Amino acid sequence: MKQYSATSLKQFTSQIFQKMGASKAQAELAAEVLNSADLRGVDSHGVARLSGYVRLWEKERLNACPTPTIVHETPSTAVMDGDQGAGLMVAPEAMNIAIEKAKIAGTGWVAIRNSNHYGIAGYHAMMALEHDMIGISMTNASPLVSPTFSKSRLLGTNPIAVAIPALSEPPVVVDMATTPVANGKLEVQHRKGEDIPEGWAQTREGLSTTDAEALKKGGAMLPLGSDRTHGSHKGYCLGGMVDIFSAVLSGANYGPWVPPFVAFLEPPAQQVGEGIGHFIGAMRIDAFRPAQEFKEHMDNWIKAFRSAEPVEPDQKVLVPGDPERALAHERLKNGIPLLEPVVEDLTNLGEQMGVPFQNS
Amino acid sequence: MKQYSATSLKQFTSQIFQKMGASKAQAELAAEVLNSADLRGVDSHGVARLSGYVRLWEKERLNACPTPTIVHETPSTAVMDGDQGAGLMVAPEAMNIAIEKAKIAGTGWVAIRNSNHYGIAGYHAMMALEHDMIGISMTNASPLVSPTFSKSRLLGTNPIAVAIPALSEPPVVVDMATTPVANGKLEVQHRKGEDIPEGWAQTREGLSTTDAEALKKGGAMLPLGSDRTHGSHKGYCLGGMVDIFSAVLSGANYGPWVPPFVAFLEPPAQQVGEGIGHFIGAMRIDAFRPAQEFKEHMDNWIKAFRSAEPVEPDQKVLVPGDPERALAHERLKNGIPLLEPVVEDLTNLGEQMGVPFQNS
Repeated sequence: MKQYSATSLKQFTSQIFQKMGASKAQAELAAEVLNSADLRGVDSHGVARLSGYVRLWEKERLNACPTPTIVHETPSTAVMDGDQGAGLMVAPEAMNIAIEKAKIAGTGWVAIRNSNHYGIAGYHAMMALEHDMIGISMTNASPLVSPTFSKSRLLGTNPIAVAIPALSEPPVVVDMATTPVANGKLEVQHRKGEDIPEGWAQTREGLSTTDAEALKKGGAMLPLGSDRTHGSHKGYCLGGMVDIFSAVLSGANYGPWVPPFVAFLEPPAQQVGEGIGHFIGAMRIDAFRPAQEFKEHMDNWIKAFRSAEPVEPDQKVLVPGDPERALAHERLKNGIPLLEPVVEDLTNLGEQMGVPFQNS
Repeated sequence: MKQYSATSLKQFTSQIFQKMGASKAQAELAAEVLNSADLRGVDSHGVARLSGYVRLWEKERLNACPTPTIVHETPSTAVMDGDQGAGLMVAPEAMNIAIEKAKIAGTGWVAIRNSNHYGIAGYHAMMALEHDMIGISMTNASPLVSPTFSKSRLLGTNPIAVAIPALSEPPVVVDMATTPVANGKLEVQHRKGEDIPEGWAQTREGLSTTDAEALKKGGAMLPLGSDRTHGSHKGYCLGGMVDIFSAVLSGANYGPWVPPFVAFLEPPAQQVGEGIGHFIGAMRIDAFRPAQEFKEHMDNWIKAFRSAEPVEPDQKVLVPGDPERALAHERLKNGIPLLEPVVEDLTNLGEQMGVPFQNS
């Protein structure tokens, strides 16, 4: 697979967003969020998704130069109207407000409505780290997941991200869908012509399946836990909580009413809110205990887990964030591999928008 | 199985706590928390656990009349020292503080150290409901769970509870261990002489097992997701987050240093904090949007999920909190069933403490 430098992909992405009307600063922010997904190995949320944002913009379902506004607030909370913007731009602005509130009130919590797909959850959570704060980020998404015992698709893969600073050790970064795997993993298996393991998806009839195309055939993804015996109702609970925090608190669409990310699917005729919703939080460490002391204990926590006894001698027990950080390090050096269909898509997009996609 | 009235069990529990030195108010609170577990079907966290608290008290590892204090605070946060108290008394006091903070700052977050087992997570979260707030509650616990790829026990079953008010519908109440099942389920299978399903536990060597006694033989419970293919690293992430919020933020013991609940096991010689830790939060609904409006949308959310199409025609798609509420209703009417060994244990405890256990 051909590798592309992070810098060149970021420049291309920024130029595309500027063609859609974004200011340079907004476009560079959006490009950085998408790029961080590519670096951290969440390929489905990186530049591969760029043309998806353009298609939504063409349909006037996405504003590429949003002016988010605060519609309600208290010392530690705010509700933001995302001005139908790209979540890539809206969510960082919400995190900035959460951080400012946390500086004064100890914590800050922002519920966002009228937004669009915000890229990887982890990016926004990690913004809090440099302020010696814990960052929290979650979002709802197009309904692809069925609750336990159901064949209806009612939830997105609704991710939760939590970033926690340490001292000498790198931060702990949780960034997880509330399903066994992210949606992109099914596509990867399909592209390879391979089956998926049982426990990832079900058929349209609600039966267990190994068909990587189950979703396209009207099936659904399963919540984390996979089946009732292994706690799928807990994954359903987590996904439901993300949906309520992101959308019912903010006034966005929830459950089956969440508008799809793909432009070729129309949003449901009935709307129960505006756009999709996110929920962003920041907790100042020294609102609880001195930051230095906390971070020393975090180093100790991390070392205890990393030095846990592995099952196989050659295995390494990881700390949340380890795999993504290792990959980012490697890809920053060697470039980001893009699949041929993605390169084609970006080349076509570049021609359409008058921004040549450099094969660099 | 013989049924016991909730009232009589509550009275007995309250009297036992008073014998340990608790004030009447403290004892009744502790009894109510334990009783709510019995009513909601979390039998392992109800009156069956009462003698466990007494054994810890005998060893001077639990204070039955604690005076929790606030050691640090900001407008939206506080750290509480639980005075080595029963968590059953400490956690509700922490939630009261979170609620008071939320009234002024919009949200309130209390990290608690130097506490003990706090009963069911859901009780404390549900305290927020009558104030039109969302309640959040989590705690760390004795290490029984191995991170993905490890055979070391480093985490408790670290539960997360979230209670969200609705209008005409009952509240949504999530109350879940971050493992496929709670520890008590293994004991139930063992008592029945039955195997456990694969994916709940592993052997001392880190191998998949169906042995219900795996834990007693040095094995470990698995995180939610069960194995790497089905997302056990996500369950590990959630359990780790609960551990950090509950203990590293508050100054309690974390990871392998969490003191065991059972009195016959000594706490680790090295301590990295004080007692066990909890994390309690309250978010005022109208710090985000008018409570009436939010609760109308919650009714709509709940109806959408409850009317989802079931896989089997006779199945019902449930909303988080439904099964526990149905059981509480039934048990309040018909009594709480207690296993014979539990009745024996309570009878002996009653004799020891001079509080006859009535077979009523």
